[in-house]
Amino acid sequence: MPKRGTLPDKIERIEPKARTGLIVVITGNGKGKTTAALGIALRACGHGMRVCIIQFMKGGLYAGEWDGVKKMSCDIELHVTGKGFCGIQGNPYPWAEHRANAQDAIDLVHEKLTGGYDVLILDEINTALRRKLVDLEQVLDILANKPPLMHLVLTGRDAHPQVIELADTVSEVREIKHAYRQGIEPQPGIDY
Amino acid sequence: MPKRGTLPDKIERIEPKARTGLIVVITGNGKGKTTAALGIALRACGHGMRVCIIQFMKGGLYAGEWDGVKKMSCDIELHVTGKGFCGIQGNPYPWAEHRANAQDAIDLVHEKLTGGYDVLILDEINTALRRKLVDLEQVLDILANKPPLMHLVLTGRDAHPQVIELADTVSEVREIKHAYRQGIEPQPGIDY
Repeated sequence: MPKRGTLPDKIERIEPKARTGLIVVITGNGKGKTTAALGIALRACGHGMRVCIIQFMKGGLYAGEWDGVKKMSCDIELHVTGKGFCGIQGNPYPWAEHRANAQDAIDLVHEKLTGGYDVLILDEINTALRRKLVDLEQVLDILANKPPLMHLVLTGRDAHPQVIELADTVSEVREIKHAYRQGIEPQPGIDY
Repeated sequence: MPKRGTLPDKIERIEPKARTGLIVVITGNGKGKTTAALGIALRACGHGMRVCIIQFMKGGLYAGEWDGVKKMSCDIELHVTGKGFCGIQGNPYPWAEHRANAQDAIDLVHEKLTGGYDVLILDEINTALRRKLVDLEQVLDILANKPPLMHLVLTGRDAHPQVIELADTVSEVREIKHAYRQGIEPQPGIDY
């Protein structure tokens, strides 16, 4: 039971005959990509799985999930890397520094690929690839080295066609509306 | 700090000048809608917010988030309602029973609207509306009665145009690929 709430009286559990680790890509220009990856982490924690999240290009701007993850009593790990969004107005860091940071994160990914995790989430790696902070060959190498039972989740807009080709499940999150277009500032709990 | 992991050395916090509660709709035929709503819950928990999730049409088929929510040391509440997906093959319950269940859930929503929550998530309510288990007037009435600072999240495919019209942020999750189309069974941690 949750601390409060209600579950069905009878709970039915299904198990796949064959377990497999999926490659999941969450792309598109809409809000909800990182958010969906966090939901995957929460769900996997429920299953008792080991989860590792590596965020690319995040920088020091606080996000609620950093504390959210701390509040989960399960085997979850979060690494925040980068210097913020490369290429957006106001970001003071040169491309070479963004690239160096992302390259360090790629090393971390390889360490985690063999770390016995059930779910590895590479948040904004599609964007890092698009901005040439990481190379296509590096991302394909990660996909090729995924342990068979590990779920690998790649988020960020403009996912590369070759990454989409290799993925099992791909969702495109399209923006229909966004509050900021009406001049509403980012709100805690939803936007960060 | 997360139990394990790394955060930036310097963390910058922004606060909106004006706090407001958003209406967020997550719709579309792709995978990631409920998942994104769970990510919102995780993020909001990080901010110390009070969260309530009401799932419509879920039935007794186990989902990992039921235990995931239990593992969060924050003020979160989950109510699982319904008798499974109305209208899909193999669901044995008559429409009237689905409708009665969804109507009970609407009563619960009204109770929670005044319960002091910061985030209220109505998972699959768009689908419940589409299947006429709840009425458009009932959903519009919920939107009209949302406390100004509460974030209200409505998920499910085929969101009603009038709901989209009233929302602040709307994302459409489109299916580009799904593993089950290649014959891969639902996998724990990703699909449930």
